[in-house]
Amino acid sequence: MTHGDLCFDYGREKRLGFPEIVYGEAKSVDQLQRIIAQCQERQHDILISRCQAEKAAELEGGHYDPVARTWIWQPEAPKGKAGKIGILSGGSADAPVVMEVKNTLGFLGIHADAYQDIGVAALERFLSRLDLIRSYDILVVVAGFEAALASVAAGQCPQPIIAVPTSVGYGVAEGGKAALSSMLASCANGVMVMNIDNGIGAALAAQRMLRLLEA
Amino acid sequence: MTHGDLCFDYGREKRLGFPEIVYGEAKSVDQLQRIIAQCQERQHDILISRCQAEKAAELEGGHYDPVARTWIWQPEAPKGKAGKIGILSGGSADAPVVMEVKNTLGFLGIHADAYQDIGVAALERFLSRLDLIRSYDILVVVAGFEAALASVAAGQCPQPIIAVPTSVGYGVAEGGKAALSSMLASCANGVMVMNIDNGIGAALAAQRMLRLLEA
Amino acid sequence: MTHGDLCFDYGREKRLGFPEIVYGEAKSVDQLQRIIAQCQERQHDILISRCQAEKAAELEGGHYDPVARTWIWQPEAPKGKAGKIGILSGGSADAPVVMEVKNTLGFLGIHADAYQDIGVAALERFLSRLDLIRSYDILVVVAGFEAALASVAAGQCPQPIIAVPTSVGYGVAEGGKAALSSMLASCANGVMVMNIDNGIGAALAAQRMLRLLEA
Amino acid sequence: MTHGDLCFDYGREKRLGFPEIVYGEAKSVDQLQRIIAQCQERQHDILISRCQAEKAAELEGGHYDPVARTWIWQPEAPKGKAGKIGILSGGSADAPVVMEVKNTLGFLGIHADAYQDIGVAALERFLSRLDLIRSYDILVVVAGFEAALASVAAGQCPQPIIAVPTSVGYGVAEGGKAALSSMLASCANGVMVMNIDNGIGAALAAQRMLRLLEA
Amino acid sequence: MTHGDLCFDYGREKRLGFPEIVYGEAKSVDQLQRIIAQCQERQHDILISRCQAEKAAELEGGHYDPVARTWIWQPEAPKGKAGKIGILSGGSADAPVVMEVKNTLGFLGIHADAYQDIGVAALERFLSRLDLIRSYDILVVVAGFEAALASVAAGQCPQPIIAVPTSVGYGVAEGGKAALSSMLASCANGVMVMNIDNGIGAALAAQRMLRLLEA
Amino acid sequence: MTHGDLCFDYGREKRLGFPEIVYGEAKSVDQLQRIIAQCQERQHDILISRCQAEKAAELEGGHYDPVARTWIWQPEAPKGKAGKIGILSGGSADAPVVMEVKNTLGFLGIHADAYQDIGVAALERFLSRLDLIRSYDILVVVAGFEAALASVAAGQCPQPIIAVPTSVGYGVAEGGKAALSSMLASCANGVMVMNIDNGIGAALAAQRMLRLLEA
Amino acid sequence: MTHGDLCFDYGREKRLGFPEIVYGEAKSVDQLQRIIAQCQERQHDILISRCQAEKAAELEGGHYDPVARTWIWQPEAPKGKAGKIGILSGGSADAPVVMEVKNTLGFLGIHADAYQDIGVAALERFLSRLDLIRSYDILVVVAGFEAALASVAAGQCPQPIIAVPTSVGYGVAEGGKAALSSMLASCANGVMVMNIDNGIGAALAAQRMLRLLEA
Amino acid sequence: MTHGDLCFDYGREKRLGFPEIVYGEAKSVDQLQRIIAQCQERQHDILISRCQAEKAAELEGGHYDPVARTWIWQPEAPKGKAGKIGILSGGSADAPVVMEVKNTLGFLGIHADAYQDIGVAALERFLSRLDLIRSYDILVVVAGFEAALASVAAGQCPQPIIAVPTSVGYGVAEGGKAALSSMLASCANGVMVMNIDNGIGAALAAQRMLRLLEA
Repeated sequence: MTHGDLCFDYGREKRLGFPEIVYGEAKSVDQLQRIIAQCQERQHDILISRCQAEKAAELEGGHYDPVARTWIWQPEAPKGKAGKIGILSGGSADAPVVMEVKNTLGFLGIHADAYQDIGVAALERFLSRLDLIRSYDILVVVAGFEAALASVAAGQCPQPIIAVPTSVGYGVAEGGKAALSSMLASCANGVMVMNIDNGIGAALAAQRMLRLLEA
Repeated sequence: MTHGDLCFDYGREKRLGFPEIVYGEAKSVDQLQRIIAQCQERQHDILISRCQAEKAAELEGGHYDPVARTWIWQPEAPKGKAGKIGILSGGSADAPVVMEVKNTLGFLGIHADAYQDIGVAALERFLSRLDLIRSYDILVVVAGFEAALASVAAGQCPQPIIAVPTSVGYGVAEGGKAALSSMLASCANGVMVMNIDNGIGAALAAQRMLRLLEA
Repeated sequence: MTHGDLCFDYGREKRLGFPEIVYGEAKSVDQLQRIIAQCQERQHDILISRCQAEKAAELEGGHYDPVARTWIWQPEAPKGKAGKIGILSGGSADAPVVMEVKNTLGFLGIHADAYQDIGVAALERFLSRLDLIRSYDILVVVAGFEAALASVAAGQCPQPIIAVPTSVGYGVAEGGKAALSSMLASCANGVMVMNIDNGIGAALAAQRMLRLLEA
Repeated sequence: MTHGDLCFDYGREKRLGFPEIVYGEAKSVDQLQRIIAQCQERQHDILISRCQAEKAAELEGGHYDPVARTWIWQPEAPKGKAGKIGILSGGSADAPVVMEVKNTLGFLGIHADAYQDIGVAALERFLSRLDLIRSYDILVVVAGFEAALASVAAGQCPQPIIAVPTSVGYGVAEGGKAALSSMLASCANGVMVMNIDNGIGAALAAQRMLRLLEA
Repeated sequence: MTHGDLCFDYGREKRLGFPEIVYGEAKSVDQLQRIIAQCQERQHDILISRCQAEKAAELEGGHYDPVARTWIWQPEAPKGKAGKIGILSGGSADAPVVMEVKNTLGFLGIHADAYQDIGVAALERFLSRLDLIRSYDILVVVAGFEAALASVAAGQCPQPIIAVPTSVGYGVAEGGKAALSSMLASCANGVMVMNIDNGIGAALAAQRMLRLLEA
Repeated sequence: MTHGDLCFDYGREKRLGFPEIVYGEAKSVDQLQRIIAQCQERQHDILISRCQAEKAAELEGGHYDPVARTWIWQPEAPKGKAGKIGILSGGSADAPVVMEVKNTLGFLGIHADAYQDIGVAALERFLSRLDLIRSYDILVVVAGFEAALASVAAGQCPQPIIAVPTSVGYGVAEGGKAALSSMLASCANGVMVMNIDNGIGAALAAQRMLRLLEA
Repeated sequence: MTHGDLCFDYGREKRLGFPEIVYGEAKSVDQLQRIIAQCQERQHDILISRCQAEKAAELEGGHYDPVARTWIWQPEAPKGKAGKIGILSGGSADAPVVMEVKNTLGFLGIHADAYQDIGVAALERFLSRLDLIRSYDILVVVAGFEAALASVAAGQCPQPIIAVPTSVGYGVAEGGKAALSSMLASCANGVMVMNIDNGIGAALAAQRMLRLLEA
Repeated sequence: MTHGDLCFDYGREKRLGFPEIVYGEAKSVDQLQRIIAQCQERQHDILISRCQAEKAAELEGGHYDPVARTWIWQPEAPKGKAGKIGILSGGSADAPVVMEVKNTLGFLGIHADAYQDIGVAALERFLSRLDLIRSYDILVVVAGFEAALASVAAGQCPQPIIAVPTSVGYGVAEGGKAALSSMLASCANGVMVMNIDNGIGAALAAQRMLRLLEA
């Protein structure tokens, strides 16, 4: 007996409050098409992450964002949820992860604003927006290289801080390793860290927190 | 001109909602005594983390927990805050970190319950408590070795999940490296990760989130 | 004196009970063609692993599976052997390794069933099949990311557990390193681990164990 | 509500065929004493692994082996099981792990013989015992440094091979890392690898396999 | 012929402008005593770095600073040199390295002021001293954990920035690795990095630069 | 509200004495074109580093150096500054980094000479130029493999030494890791190290130092 | 003043007994052509290592071996030298490094025989040739994966053993890291190790040793 | 059947030309005493390496060198062999490894001279002895930190170069890792590398080479 290779978790939305996200990078076009077909048949929302452009070109009916590499199919617009998320990024090269966070939050019906390219090499860019930044319910900090923005933000802002290291950089920063260890070792208290480039995870972590607003 | 080596951040409580925590491990007894004296003079709460027993023996007036290695001095009991935290741990060897989380939350006036030694080697220990575990506002998962409990909990529980890898283990798990990478790479969405053994950080991350309950 | 670069181990089947497997990835087409010609002349079964599609297109007479990247030539069907293997996988992206295990076992005349995409992010997928899974003689667990399925399965099933980390994942999971350390550090006892993506090794480890059934 | 820090898995023997093993290294004497008391009250066998000598001196009623660092309490001798295990080691410095494997198997009622100090620097030591070594049901290979014995044994012996890297060595071999990667990367097929120094795991892996003899 | 194990570089001062510094950590007391005797005989200044307290207790005639672990013997006070160095540190636990920099500069006749415990978790501590800090010729930034102070300082100050990661921290920061990679990967341009805890090197790098003032 | 992804730091020149350098490698052509347009509108000098040739082909109006991968647009020639920089390199394969340093210095109006391919495998190449090399104000040493040139130069020359490891090499030297650790661990005092291949940083570090000449 | 990027070491042959070898991998075609022209003008032998096929196609007058990736130009055949080298390899995928060793020795006038594909997975392949292998002056062992052949050979053969790890393998063996650490950690005494894939180095190490035959 | 844990290789001297060396670090005093007794009974030379002082104090009849940590028992002086070895070291802290090499060579009847503390921070120390150094048959270079001495020596001397990295250093040099990778990546051709601190291996590698003098 050989079972199929797909076993979509249709119970996730009920169990956790959000649907299964499909990790597209290591799946074949054939696998993705079968998952999409299953979801469309059930009218079940679907978001495919890290979907390479050449694969996306073969998928039908959804919306593809080439910066974020997200492919989304939703039969109807998501119901808006309470809470506002602020996304901060260190540099413009972090845009793919920023947009993955933003698109995923949008897919879940959550409002988010992005403040990009405000890394600490020019502190003024962050400090001049501080009052605005402190007005969000949750902050997501996206940064590569040494990711010092996470520590600075966590030292100035009382909100929950979700930190996402990005694979932007070279040498010791290559692949995001320097940013990851920097965020984990932050001298500012309470910074919570995701895997490198894991914008999806950051968005779902925020979604989990926003449940507290409904309590 | 040579400045002193201490520059306590008395503004942190107002700015962030919690006081500066003193990292005791790499400080001398002399440095700790001077910080304590400053705080006591101002009637300012103080928590020293990772305070070795031999150092604690030389500090006066506070409460020392030899398991958590926290030294606490509070002129009056903290005001209770809204929200309940559930702390889960994989094994009984994780107790020092569990207690660091719990003591820090207590120091901040936050209620927490611990469910220890319920790692996935015997899934029954977790599953039989699942309804109870799902009743908390936030979950903190503390685990060493391969830390699979974080993934299993995040797959079954919709709350925010703060994961703390511990330095329990040997070989590839030595120093907590396997647990850390396992938690960061979790297949369950939205797991947020702290540095290895960083119970303080987990407690303060929870504190930041509980602000959402007051919104 | 310069000797040829090929020295196929024709004695392996007699000595160990299984033929030499040819590791195709780093060999040239010319080297592979010479090995195949030698084997075909002797009517000796041959399995080439990790054979890239472009190389396989130049090899004649065998069967190529583009998912598993195995190229097999067997003059006659293998004799069926006692024992049933259950292969579990965390996600559908693990299919190449799952199929490498399955094809290799088939090549050796061993029956195997695959249960794919049942990772612990949705424990129900595993638990609902638990009775079936417990009915196999040996379990092979194939997983990437944090590979928590290995620990959960080993905690619930008394059989030998052969764990194969896969190179599925990114950030700290890139190249399979997180899955490898997680499986080695498993809190569940007796998990035996193969190199990353080593489906061939898992199949031959199972073959070695099945000798015990004949004892 | 704060639960205790101990949650012994009394169901493990029924579920998996062997009792929970207590990892002693990171537990306090107080924790160990409470676990022992619980087990003794229930007449439940108990093995504490990696129990430091100074802790063992404070535990009562059991048998302590200072080489293997195992502390064992069994109200009655274990029932003998079918199957014979051969344990091979590279050097005499590997004795602690060899004895951990042997004591754990003995605790489970399984017969084992050890062939120590037969590393490949003098191949004669292995080759002269080859016929004998090939007579066991399962081989456990324990080795530090570059652990080449695992590959040589797996190339000459058709049995299941459980490889345990040890933390014997210095420089690149420090902590067992060279031995671990060497065993995982073995050119001989089907070598199954445990975490560094994990003699307990090797013994329980063997126990799982011996179930096949009873099939 | 066996030569002695000591070959002090008396030509260094003439060649490079500063004397050889003796790395004390891995030398025996006997070796240190012989070097001191040689220098004293020649009336040659000597600084022993990383000299453990128990060794220092056996050395005669010099000045030992137990925080910096420097042992210094100078027959006469050094001639003062042009230039002012500002030393900034992230936390009070960095004091040993701060003092090693300061003592070495003093040994060379160079003026330095230390601004300690002004890490970015409370940016105010740095920003409120910014005008003062910008008045030095060279800045040495000493920090452990994620060392974000180096990036913030380099973004606000036009001077040469010598960054010294310290081994303060735990988990991913253990041994100073996170601080080192963070400083190397700084998004702020022109940060120059020393080995972990290398206060001696930072002081001598500053000395080399001050030659430009004399040009 | 979603802000744009670009936030160029026009204040950097005034604050630090040099303009923001644009890191081109991870930016899209669209992003680069928008930054260039902004700068050209303001008549603001712009240097894009690590600009791939295929991107450079789409950028208009500037000068591209395919070896250094720098793209520069300057409305008028920079004003010459005091000070001379000597750039030394280990091998001819280091040319891209050497030229990045040189072009960046030129962009800033600083004079530099390059002495390439003088690694220590043939010490004569360095020693025969020693007097000349000792005549510069600052030395930049660019080297891959084991980068021993940095230690040799720092032992013979009293100037500030900025060391840039390059990603030239294979095996343990791959990606520049051996060169980086070698330069950080130099036995010669005062070597200051940049991230791997960070020629931009070396040039700006030199620029910061040359301010001392103006003091 | 800007010097050229080439500085060929024409004195090496006289100083060390062998000419400079040109590392081709990171050099441009233009750089290679200029070096060749210089050498041809002087009638100086030249060997370019790791020369990619597409580069070699643009170089004139020499002999290119696409397996070894060596490009050689010698105006006349080298003078034969005393001594015989035996090259052993673990698998046929190691052929590029084997041939780099062999071609370099040939370039230097040294006789070598290769015994390929005799790894320890089938010890018979090595043992059956042992008498022959023991007849060489020096052995070069080339192997990837866990490289156990080096230890086995060094345990059976009294000659100098030069071990070259190769980048053949995947997972923990990727890039040759497992083979490198295994060879360095060999339990057999006196194994000397080269960088991964460094066949050139092995050949020149052998050349240095053969000088002893002339003593 | 349980075999003893000792299996001394008495055939090594005949097979390889040198006796088995006993690695003392991880053996118990009891094990060492039994090996010594066996050897003394057979009048077989014995050298125990890395023998801690407290163990050596319990061993009788041999000579212990506390710097090299070698314990040697030889019933009669070894027969002198042809050949002279030059041992170079970077700093005086490398003395333990230098002496391990020297004592082992002495044990084998081979003459060696040591030139210590001549690292490249002061090139004069090496260059002024160059003629002498070039007069040896083989050079052993022992160095910690960045170990640049190996490259410099190999660039100036035509002899075989055996490089031994030492665990002297801190930060990135801790444990000898920087020295190891530096020596492996040397730009000078033909440097052969031993494991960190492996003086024994270097001596036996030299012994193997000296056989060529007898050819």
